Amino acid sequence: MKRFAIVLAAGQGKRMKSKLYKVLHPVCGKPMVGHVLDTVKKVQCERSIVVVGHGAEAVKSYLGNNAEYVLQEQQLGTGHAVRQAGDLLGQEEGTTIVICGDTPLVTEETLQAMLDLHSQKGAAATVLTASMDRPQGYGRVIRDTENGSVVRIVEQKDCSPEEDAVKEINTGTYCFDNAKLFAALEKVTNSNAQQEYYLTDVIGILVSEGEVVEGYMTGDYAESIGVNDRLALSEAEGFMRQRINRRHMLGGVTIIDPSSTYIGADVTIGADTVIYPGSTLSGHTVIGEDCVIGPAVEIEDSRIHDGAKVKQSVLCQAEVGKETTVGPFAYLRPGTKLGEHVKVGDFVEIKNATLDDGSKVSHLSYIGDAKVGKNVNIGCGAITVNYDGYNKSITEIGDDAFIGSNVNLIAPVKIGDGAYVVAGSTITHSVPDNDLAIARNRQENKPGYADKLRARAKAKKQREQETKG
Amino acid sequence: MKRFAIVLAAGQGKRMKSKLYKVLHPVCGKPMVGHVLDTVKKVQCERSIVVVGHGAEAVKSYLGNNAEYVLQEQQLGTGHAVRQAGDLLGQEEGTTIVICGDTPLVTEETLQAMLDLHSQKGAAATVLTASMDRPQGYGRVIRDTENGSVVRIVEQKDCSPEEDAVKEINTGTYCFDNAKLFAALEKVTNSNAQQEYYLTDVIGILVSEGEVVEGYMTGDYAESIGVNDRLALSEAEGFMRQRINRRHMLGGVTIIDPSSTYIGADVTIGADTVIYPGSTLSGHTVIGEDCVIGPAVEIEDSRIHDGAKVKQSVLCQAEVGKETTVGPFAYLRPGTKLGEHVKVGDFVEIKNATLDDGSKVSHLSYIGDAKVGKNVNIGCGAITVNYDGYNKSITEIGDDAFIGSNVNLIAPVKIGDGAYVVAGSTITHSVPDNDLAIARNRQENKPGYADKLRARAKAKKQREQETKG
Amino acid sequence: MKRFAIVLAAGQGKRMKSKLYKVLHPVCGKPMVGHVLDTVKKVQCERSIVVVGHGAEAVKSYLGNNAEYVLQEQQLGTGHAVRQAGDLLGQEEGTTIVICGDTPLVTEETLQAMLDLHSQKGAAATVLTASMDRPQGYGRVIRDTENGSVVRIVEQKDCSPEEDAVKEINTGTYCFDNAKLFAALEKVTNSNAQQEYYLTDVIGILVSEGEVVEGYMTGDYAESIGVNDRLALSEAEGFMRQRINRRHMLGGVTIIDPSSTYIGADVTIGADTVIYPGSTLSGHTVIGEDCVIGPAVEIEDSRIHDGAKVKQSVLCQAEVGKETTVGPFAYLRPGTKLGEHVKVGDFVEIKNATLDDGSKVSHLSYIGDAKVGKNVNIGCGAITVNYDGYNKSITEIGDDAFIGSNVNLIAPVKIGDGAYVVAGSTITHSVPDNDLAIARNRQENKPGYADKLRARAKAKKQREQETKG
Repeated sequence: MKRFAIVLAAGQGKRMKSKLYKVLHPVCGKPMVGHVLDTVKKVQCERSIVVVGHGAEAVKSYLGNNAEYVLQEQQLGTGHAVRQAGDLLGQEEGTTIVICGDTPLVTEETLQAMLDLHSQKGAAATVLTASMDRPQGYGRVIRDTENGSVVRIVEQKDCSPEEDAVKEINTGTYCFDNAKLFAALEKVTNSNAQQEYYLTDVIGILVSEGEVVEGYMTGDYAESIGVNDRLALSEAEGFMRQRINRRHMLGGVTIIDPSSTYIGADVTIGADTVIYPGSTLSGHTVIGEDCVIGPAVEIEDSRIHDGAKVKQSVLCQAEVGKETTVGPFAYLRPGTKLGEHVKVGDFVEIKNATLDDGSKVSHLSYIGDAKVGKNVNIGCGAITVNYDGYNKSITEIGDDAFIGSNVNLIAPVKIGDGAYVVAGSTITHSVPDNDLAIARNRQENKPGYADKLRARAKAKKQREQETKG
Repeated sequence: MKRFAIVLAAGQGKRMKSKLYKVLHPVCGKPMVGHVLDTVKKVQCERSIVVVGHGAEAVKSYLGNNAEYVLQEQQLGTGHAVRQAGDLLGQEEGTTIVICGDTPLVTEETLQAMLDLHSQKGAAATVLTASMDRPQGYGRVIRDTENGSVVRIVEQKDCSPEEDAVKEINTGTYCFDNAKLFAALEKVTNSNAQQEYYLTDVIGILVSEGEVVEGYMTGDYAESIGVNDRLALSEAEGFMRQRINRRHMLGGVTIIDPSSTYIGADVTIGADTVIYPGSTLSGHTVIGEDCVIGPAVEIEDSRIHDGAKVKQSVLCQAEVGKETTVGPFAYLRPGTKLGEHVKVGDFVEIKNATLDDGSKVSHLSYIGDAKVGKNVNIGCGAITVNYDGYNKSITEIGDDAFIGSNVNLIAPVKIGDGAYVVAGSTITHSVPDNDLAIARNRQENKPGYADKLRARAKAKKQREQETKG
Repeated sequence: MKRFAIVLAAGQGKRMKSKLYKVLHPVCGKPMVGHVLDTVKKVQCERSIVVVGHGAEAVKSYLGNNAEYVLQEQQLGTGHAVRQAGDLLGQEEGTTIVICGDTPLVTEETLQAMLDLHSQKGAAATVLTASMDRPQGYGRVIRDTENGSVVRIVEQKDCSPEEDAVKEINTGTYCFDNAKLFAALEKVTNSNAQQEYYLTDVIGILVSEGEVVEGYMTGDYAESIGVNDRLALSEAEGFMRQRINRRHMLGGVTIIDPSSTYIGADVTIGADTVIYPGSTLSGHTVIGEDCVIGPAVEIEDSRIHDGAKVKQSVLCQAEVGKETTVGPFAYLRPGTKLGEHVKVGDFVEIKNATLDDGSKVSHLSYIGDAKVGKNVNIGCGAITVNYDGYNKSITEIGDDAFIGSNVNLIAPVKIGDGAYVVAGSTITHSVPDNDLAIARNRQENKPGYADKLRARAKAKKQREQETKG
């Protein structure tokens, strides 16, 4: 049996008060509609039709070839929206999931369980439901008291007192026999107060035709959250965060404070790694085993190998080798590649540079556009001067070299293996292997001159005060 | 009808265990009594009388002319406290709110609703009440079963079993007909176990005199929290934080984790700005639209224009222009003014300095007491030396100038438009427009000398070991 | 009456998915078994026997002489585990607490109350119980309806419907009359589905022998959490964090956001200190009164004196004097000792160095292996060059000295009292008191040369484009 998905993404989302289309607002780093599409693909939907509204070019641009699109020109209700997919899907045979693009928390497991029930019961439609203690405002799911099948969905405002007491609500996610869905949609009218075509009317039509309609209740109400404003967005983010962190913890990662740890959906982390609070891991970051990460790191699209430690630092598109330590207060920019047992300390920026095994850049340095060998020691304040105002150039430093404090290496320049550059030098020419390079002035002590400076400053101040006075 | 407020702020707050007077402890950056006074002003109280105790000079000093003060010399109960306001308010006609200075969460909307009910019912007094699931320890509000008016307030210890089951409690906030309040206060006695004059006795007196006493129940219990220790202080802070963040989110701001985002009561933020976790925005900070703020920023009394990005940085009394980026790890101190499309990168401090449009200070620099033109590039490690131990002086850098890495600009000094200062130079004199300035030594390579150094160090170590051995 | 403790710590903890033995996983910085051992010592247990399993050498190594150990070679149930302690404790007279090594939250107060009830009732055994709304999966405590004593403990799977409805559960912590415990253990068999020896069978045996068995119910269910996976570990960490923070708040410390403030069990903090969010205080850190700590600090094993301010910084084994300010973005490493009214500013690292009263290192400096006097001003970017690639050496700076910006002090070197080192100098020899030292080149301005550079760069680019084209 083939499966299809219709994702409703035409709503403007006025309450978001945003220039960004609603379903593109990210949750844990991924747009909501991306979460939904990922999930329907996981339950083997062969085709996914996204119903978009005017101005939703950004949705198409984001999803690209991962979906097909139909335009709902006017927002005439959910039934009308689904109907737009008729041209594309109307002739298919199979099961069709209908789901909103602003419900990022629905899980693969839940969709699968709904589909299983649907198929097992031979249903024409199955509604995903949830139980709420305070169901005010939600459509209630009324079940047959004998066989438990769904007999109708009643909107809050139309509820009788008995219906009002029902705690099972319609989440707005369904699966349908595809042919029966589109046949029933033909019969839905807009003869109601809002003059809209409601998808829920399909349920009543199917029941009246003697079809089986089932309801699958998810155990976790949070799954069905629909995001209509930024408050709900932050709640969805919180639930997703909790879910992601729970998965990592059960996999053997220690997360000191899951509520203050922000891990993207596509991050992987090895067992026995400890994540300290205030840390953000995003993109396709991969973290090995036995690492210590945080507190207060931000790591994006980076790879951290086993046993590395990264503290109070920002990394983007960087690679950190085994047992290497980074931070506190380091900034690794794209193209950084650190070998094993490297040390990048505090107030150090690395950009587009390789540091081979055992090298150290302990403090207050900038290494950009550089290739640094093994066991190199780069002194405090040393800088690769990669930009002359017009061009960027490369610095090469050989194995076992020693670069003194506050040294400027004016690229392009090559420091040979085992070379030694003394502190305070500005190096404009290459240094051969094992040479020592120096470029600084001799020190001169001027006896008592500091005293004279002080006396002069004091006298000046006195004059100023006398002038004022 | 005139309105007045009496704010009770004489309690010492022993359980705070603080040298600071209780009502001066801040919640979301503003002292509790400041929140209360702001709120009563919003419902048009013409005069606000703050009842202070001994040693409360700091309260007067903080509130200044925003209130009038009466001294309660001895702490003889809430009734006694309110009575102290009699000399100032006793002759007024109108409605008087009585509220505690340690209840910072009561809202304008709630006070207004209480006042509306009070006036609509022609009440002599209206009590602000709340419903609590576990009301132990709170005075219960007993209502007339027929007309719903308040008949008395019973302290926990005096409750009958029926009264004990009542979940409506007295929050300690009231409004009164002013004349009836002070008349009734004359009749309150201290003939009770504590020998105190209770304000709640006024309710009984008014009822016994046939006056109408109403109760207005707030929907949110949290509003009535009174802060008596630092635990309650942190809870009040949490509720206030939630309330402020909720307001911003509903206004179109994305807050990734509202529970870890700390926004002061007087901060404004434009729509489509995203705030990442661990960020503190305080004082009169104004943030534009489409900004990216955080993670882990601290911004005080600053202005961030549309489209700017500020990450992992600390800003105080700074201005950041449109589309400008700051951080990670930057420190903008008072008097910083950045133009549009400026870049202030990592490990950069700016103080009392202007950087005009398009200029860049990418890393490891200090720019203090300076005026920097447009499209200036300030190299890594470059420093304005604004202090000679005696005086602070100004550095001026013209448009399109290029300042090399690790350059010292010894102020007072002026670098002309289009001038170029080579890396590693210490600049003591001004550089004319389009000149190149250099102040460094030629490099000398000493062949094989690094090898000799190593050999010498090795030999020394060997000698030391032999000496030990 | 003597007291003993048997701590069950032989479980492998497979669900932790860890190379680290389960009971060694830390909660708020201290291994779980360490918390348990600390707690039983607080109720005067004279001997503590820790039952360990194979591979638990790390447990012995961590606890050392603080406990005695017995090996449970095979994991044959809790009864079997306790029985292993028989050789060591079997002949003792007194009361024996049995507690699991993975229940770090049980408090001294609760154990004491359980012991008090035990002794007052003359019980043979007393079970620590808790009330749970959803007790599924836990053993239920069945009490005598008349005298309230415990008659049996029933595992979930063996519960009758009446027993299933009981909400009082067995936490797995007990105290026993020591002799009766070991006598009863002899009678426990493994004739059950799991073929294990259950400690709970002892309860049934004692009751059947007419002994008194009591149950003490703790008020806080959280106390009895047993940690079996990292999810539970994070929950235990959360509860412990809350408990620690609550203690500090009630003691007079303001914690802006207790849920994002991470304070170790052994940290002390003075009254009127304010802790901002995202801060981690660990080890034996001692913080004085009136300090401002955070946001986003990490302080380990350090001492912060009264009135100091530390912001966005990392400190390890450092001492910060009265009224001294540190940060934002400073890194104080082991051996840092700051006097009073010192300022350590942004992007500054201090290591193994003393700074005496009133000295300032405001920005972008590294001070390592140094002794700095009083009222010294160390300019921006100044560095103590303590490492020459072979040896670490000392820098000494006298009182009232002034070190200019970007200065290198090549250790070993001594700067005298009142000496003045001009900006940009590399100092290789000592500077006598009140001398001025200089080591830099004269500035040369090359008229119009910046223009020529630009023209040349432009020409070069044009050539490159022509070559491409």
